[in-house]
Amino acid sequence: MHATVIVELKPSVLDPQGKAIQHSISTLGFEGVEDVRAGKLFRITLADTGQPREEIERQLRQICERLLANTVIEKFSYSIDD
Amino acid sequence: MHATVIVELKPSVLDPQGKAIQHSISTLGFEGVEDVRAGKLFRITLADTGQPREEIERQLRQICERLLANTVIEKFSYSIDD
Repeated sequence: MHATVIVELKPSVLDPQGKAIQHSISTLGFEGVEDVRAGKLFRITLADTGQPREEIERQLRQICERLLANTVIEKFSYSIDD
Repeated sequence: MHATVIVELKPSVLDPQGKAIQHSISTLGFEGVEDVRAGKLFRITLADTGQPREEIERQLRQICERLLANTVIEKFSYSIDD
């Protein structure tokens, strides 16, 4: 079972890394890029322990809240594929 | 118009960051996580310049190859939403 977690800065939080990338894209000669926001992605392989889907999602949310995301400034989303 | 670019290490490349995260998840008491791979995600806002879709995709691939990804060790994928 595979889970994909995306962690991104909240929209209200400034993203200097994204701004630097946007500037670099413009320097390379590409026009029309209005904004860039950088985030993180995690591909997690989960053992098939026979737990119900709700329990797996609960654990995954806890992993996000306690380890992968700083929920003060970041939001997270996830998807689970069987 | 919005594009989402995902940059990940190629499967054959070791991912020490992912391994460290996997170890931390285990230390937190969560069992059953067999592997973690870390990647990057970019949300790009594109101006509506009236260019054909193929041209936008061509430019996006060039941005990935020249700036966002190190194609020696990383692979990239993208999606475009109108």
